[in-house]
Amino acid sequence: MPIERLEPDLKLAAALFDSLGRATRRGRGIVRDSYGPGEQAAHDIMHAAADKIGLDISIDAIGNLLMTLAGRDRLAPRIMIGSHLDSVPQGGNYDGAAGVVAGLCAVSALKQAGERPPCDITVMGIRAEESAWFDIAYLGSGGAFGLLDPACLRIPRSDNGKSLEATLIERGFDPQPIRERRPLLDPKGIRAYLELHIEQGPTLVAEGLPAAAVTGIRGCKRFRNARCIGRYGHSGAVNRAHRHDAVAATVALLHHLEETWVARERAGEDLVITSGEFYTDPAMHGPSKIAGETRFVIDVRSVSDATMNAVAAEARQAAARIGKAYRVDFDLGATSDSPPAVMDERLRAALNGRLDRPYEMASGAGHDAAVFAKMGIPTGMIFVRNDNGSHNPDEAMTLDDFSVATQALLGLLLDFPPP
Amino acid sequence: MPIERLEPDLKLAAALFDSLGRATRRGRGIVRDSYGPGEQAAHDIMHAAADKIGLDISIDAIGNLLMTLAGRDRLAPRIMIGSHLDSVPQGGNYDGAAGVVAGLCAVSALKQAGERPPCDITVMGIRAEESAWFDIAYLGSGGAFGLLDPACLRIPRSDNGKSLEATLIERGFDPQPIRERRPLLDPKGIRAYLELHIEQGPTLVAEGLPAAAVTGIRGCKRFRNARCIGRYGHSGAVNRAHRHDAVAATVALLHHLEETWVARERAGEDLVITSGEFYTDPAMHGPSKIAGETRFVIDVRSVSDATMNAVAAEARQAAARIGKAYRVDFDLGATSDSPPAVMDERLRAALNGRLDRPYEMASGAGHDAAVFAKMGIPTGMIFVRNDNGSHNPDEAMTLDDFSVATQALLGLLLDFPPP
Repeated sequence: MPIERLEPDLKLAAALFDSLGRATRRGRGIVRDSYGPGEQAAHDIMHAAADKIGLDISIDAIGNLLMTLAGRDRLAPRIMIGSHLDSVPQGGNYDGAAGVVAGLCAVSALKQAGERPPCDITVMGIRAEESAWFDIAYLGSGGAFGLLDPACLRIPRSDNGKSLEATLIERGFDPQPIRERRPLLDPKGIRAYLELHIEQGPTLVAEGLPAAAVTGIRGCKRFRNARCIGRYGHSGAVNRAHRHDAVAATVALLHHLEETWVARERAGEDLVITSGEFYTDPAMHGPSKIAGETRFVIDVRSVSDATMNAVAAEARQAAARIGKAYRVDFDLGATSDSPPAVMDERLRAALNGRLDRPYEMASGAGHDAAVFAKMGIPTGMIFVRNDNGSHNPDEAMTLDDFSVATQALLGLLLDFPPP
Repeated sequence: MPIERLEPDLKLAAALFDSLGRATRRGRGIVRDSYGPGEQAAHDIMHAAADKIGLDISIDAIGNLLMTLAGRDRLAPRIMIGSHLDSVPQGGNYDGAAGVVAGLCAVSALKQAGERPPCDITVMGIRAEESAWFDIAYLGSGGAFGLLDPACLRIPRSDNGKSLEATLIERGFDPQPIRERRPLLDPKGIRAYLELHIEQGPTLVAEGLPAAAVTGIRGCKRFRNARCIGRYGHSGAVNRAHRHDAVAATVALLHHLEETWVARERAGEDLVITSGEFYTDPAMHGPSKIAGETRFVIDVRSVSDATMNAVAAEARQAAARIGKAYRVDFDLGATSDSPPAVMDERLRAALNGRLDRPYEMASGAGHDAAVFAKMGIPTGMIFVRNDNGSHNPDEAMTLDDFSVATQALLGLLLDFPPP
């Protein structure tokens, strides 16, 4: 088959998704527990497939699976394709695994065509990306680059209480590199990192598009413990001018932030603002009382640090101004921050250019790609349409859509843009 | 002393407040439990004072205390001055009792001056106004006019579980008139009802005024169980255009209602709107989730039924419109309604005209006066400045302010406006 018409090995993809589903379904949903039997089953399936394709296989000290198609220049920096093989409890079959399957289908096609790429191509099955099990995200990729705080070894697994350290040892892995913050991968040896992932939101379903190039992974700036302190009062007996109404003030603040959001979105900025928790005090509130307190979250996300910082500053200014107007005190508290990751312009354009209907969008959720980007490695991501969101048993990606995105990935491998 | 310079008997007032406080304080607060020993102690104190003044005393079948200064025409419709003698648990010394004390101080002054008014003046110590004990307001005044649903006899007292019926019998009263909806007072025999009460909000404190004439008692139209149903989603992965954000939609609705409020207030309407309960579901919400549900209260109060109805209709229309825009479903549910009571124009003007610094305001809380007004009896109310709100041990009314309001009441008795 001529190289330019090479197609990913979709038969392999179908077989792998089927095996994964059969091996890791527990009741209605998928359970591929980080560093547990579910995740291990997924690693075993990928390992066996890589063996069959004829890839070089290695497993690093903390269990990441590296499956390599040898290139013509084995000393040249390699291209990596990866994603994670764990899932949340009662998750779906595609979040994470689709990216590893895509890598294997692409290199399988190259191998079958007898194509020897200019550099090594390594498909990486990454450990423990989901924070559901050890309350820390990116364990596998972060550990591979020596980025983890050794204190994380003491984190207990959420279901069985075993520490990460004990769990690693039990599985035959070695916590020592984490203790020493010792990297297992050299960023200089990696020319690019590519990740295919299902979209975790509804954009592609709504737009009627099978896939999209990712512009960046949104960072998050979150006021996790915001409060408004007013004064309880009789809802009938206290007029507007004398109220210290915590609900009214919080409503005014959140309304203002929504206006800020709309304005910045119109100006072309990437931004989402969410207050997913908002509550008066059930021990104190009442239907005929003015609320004396609210607690709420403000979650600000963008691919741009500047945008997040500007919105956080605006939130603080507005809280001061509105607090004065409503005679209440806002205490927004500190923010917890995770920085955004910008995808490599060349890779992003190259992936997008390979889509019949080019479309670019930000990723709102975090991905291992953010860790590679943080290490200065040129990183590209492609999203596949997926209905019903992720982190639930109803994830719904079709093999057709998967094939569109994997085809773009394969095309990129065959015609990799020069630095 | 010339009639025009007659002053209320403030020595009596001081003594009565002192006796009340000593007899009914339990720990920090006042407990005058409806149809219990605390309320009875207050009745006994008033009874003894009325005896000493030389008033005709009677107690109706359900325990209301009627203390009458005989007028020149004993068959003419009488003027009543009253309030309730019960309190909430751990309440203050003035909510209710001040109105009965004011009546006694006024008729005591008339009696001492040898003044015989044109008609009887009856001071009424009303039973069980607070709903804290039997979960129904205005038991005493409602019962006096045969307005109670006989089913109320089965309501258990909140602290000891005894039914209203058993409690009445135990106290030596007779539930039969309530069973028969039989009135104990004839509205045609009442020329006017006057009530002095502490203000339960902060308006007079803020305005620096000792007293105010009441324009009306606000009714209440309350959406007690309003809900907004959206869809939970990832706070980062779902853009604005695809959200079903229950918090954002509820914020938009409440913001709109505040704008409505401000506009109507500017147009001179009496109105307060409160959302004192607002909460996302603690079992489902999360800091990185879009909220799929909120529950909240909208409490609308005004002296005007038309205003409350218009705001409720506006709330329903806005909920439909905003629900559509935010792709959520609002279910505001039914309203629970209590009608407003308008004070008699002549009495209101006459009371206000007797204040050095005339000031009129609506009452946000309910009062027995609402029951008399509902019976078509010309009703007037005067508020006394009170710090720290009511229904708590920190109620703070000064005898000076009390004297200003009682003086206005006494002036009205001496120069009662013709019908």
